[in-house]
Amino acid sequence: MRVSFLGTGAAGGVPLYGCACLACEQARVQADAVRRPCCALIETTTSRILLDAGLMDIDQHFPLGSLDAIVLTHFHPDHVQGLFHLRWGVGRRIPVWGPHDTEGCADLYRNPGLLQFHTAEKFNAFQIGDCRLTPLPLIHSKPTVGYAIEGPNGSRFAYLTDTLGLPPATEDWLRCWGEHDLAIDCSFPAGDIAKNHNDWAAALGIVERLRPQHAWLTHIGHTFDEWRLSSDCQALPSGVSIAADGERVELRSRNV
Amino acid sequence: MRVSFLGTGAAGGVPLYGCACLACEQARVQADAVRRPCCALIETTTSRILLDAGLMDIDQHFPLGSLDAIVLTHFHPDHVQGLFHLRWGVGRRIPVWGPHDTEGCADLYRNPGLLQFHTAEKFNAFQIGDCRLTPLPLIHSKPTVGYAIEGPNGSRFAYLTDTLGLPPATEDWLRCWGEHDLAIDCSFPAGDIAKNHNDWAAALGIVERLRPQHAWLTHIGHTFDEWRLSSDCQALPSGVSIAADGERVELRSRNV
Repeated sequence: MRVSFLGTGAAGGVPLYGCACLACEQARVQADAVRRPCCALIETTTSRILLDAGLMDIDQHFPLGSLDAIVLTHFHPDHVQGLFHLRWGVGRRIPVWGPHDTEGCADLYRNPGLLQFHTAEKFNAFQIGDCRLTPLPLIHSKPTVGYAIEGPNGSRFAYLTDTLGLPPATEDWLRCWGEHDLAIDCSFPAGDIAKNHNDWAAALGIVERLRPQHAWLTHIGHTFDEWRLSSDCQALPSGVSIAADGERVELRSRNV
Repeated sequence: MRVSFLGTGAAGGVPLYGCACLACEQARVQADAVRRPCCALIETTTSRILLDAGLMDIDQHFPLGSLDAIVLTHFHPDHVQGLFHLRWGVGRRIPVWGPHDTEGCADLYRNPGLLQFHTAEKFNAFQIGDCRLTPLPLIHSKPTVGYAIEGPNGSRFAYLTDTLGLPPATEDWLRCWGEHDLAIDCSFPAGDIAKNHNDWAAALGIVERLRPQHAWLTHIGHTFDEWRLSSDCQALPSGVSIAADGERVELRSRNV
């Protein structure tokens, strides 16, 4: 199973409009420092799943029929805005899974066009191609789920954003899941006022408790990047890295 | 007063996702046939107003402080989606005018960030720099106004999208306004089932009745472009043109 971090940015992205901090100025001149809306692609030899749809160029990278499904963590604009024009396309319908949220985002439910919405019920696994996805409740300002994804050959990957901490039931579920990799929301630097998203301390706390094989921090805000560029930030613990836009990772098989 | 048609597309744009019609295939290989979300820039020597905000790269073209205001015709995603990330910027607030619409779009009202919303009351003119804008009610599936814009030296430009026909009060107002140019919604070809938007016949009917100096058709859908590429479409009447993305027009002064 391969994970591609197509976007790793918090709402607003990096660079942030009007901001002259070190991280934003760097991202204006250095393409690999840019962070677009948080979003990842899961691929196996037979399946292709897009996790969140905040990128506006989904149409250019994924011709109609090339995605088995789009799976949403929640309905905030930076996670669904790429669907606004996609839906008006012509051709076969696209399955879109998302948490139970009566509101959705703007008029997506009212005018779904090509999109065929399905509800991802908490802890109720569903299958897309050769991947099994279990929606795990998260703690955010809108109904939100992460996904525990089991691919062929026992590869396991948990995608946990957007969240501030984890509900005990989600943490218990992941502890029982066995060896896995994970991506976790880490929007703010240590000590920042964390609202609806993890800061560094909250993200690392989760990593320490769950002990994944590897953890990628994602949904990164400009203040986090600025803090990492400064001299007084802490070193990354072993087995933890900060995801970058475009980063591709082959997850290990776990044939047992 | 200068008008730049930054985007001239209907919702979904041209090319449309998954579509293999002549117009969409052409737009995939020919940059000047692409139509992005409908949107225009009004400039005088001292003022800069963005009409609608569906483009996602507003931040790149308009650094914070370079726009006097953003003026919205309505709150459909393809007219406001560029505000979703812009609002999280830092610096001075951006005045955003739009019609009275209790719903707005997604969480823009709840989390306005940098945006400072003002209501554009029907027929109640307001001033931005050296431009006077009068909101004119239109006929659409969401509360929508067009704008009659009076710049310095008596230049006059009416921006009328999205609409199917015009309310009699708007038509009366424009007839009394005096000599002007206009841009008008023309989403569909002649004879297409027009829903919430003008087709060719409805757009030309409005132009015939209002007799502007010049009319630009905008908010163009792919079926309209395909029809224009076919051999059986009608010639454009004199004084009418089809707007293109990136087209810039210097409006004549009317010093009387």
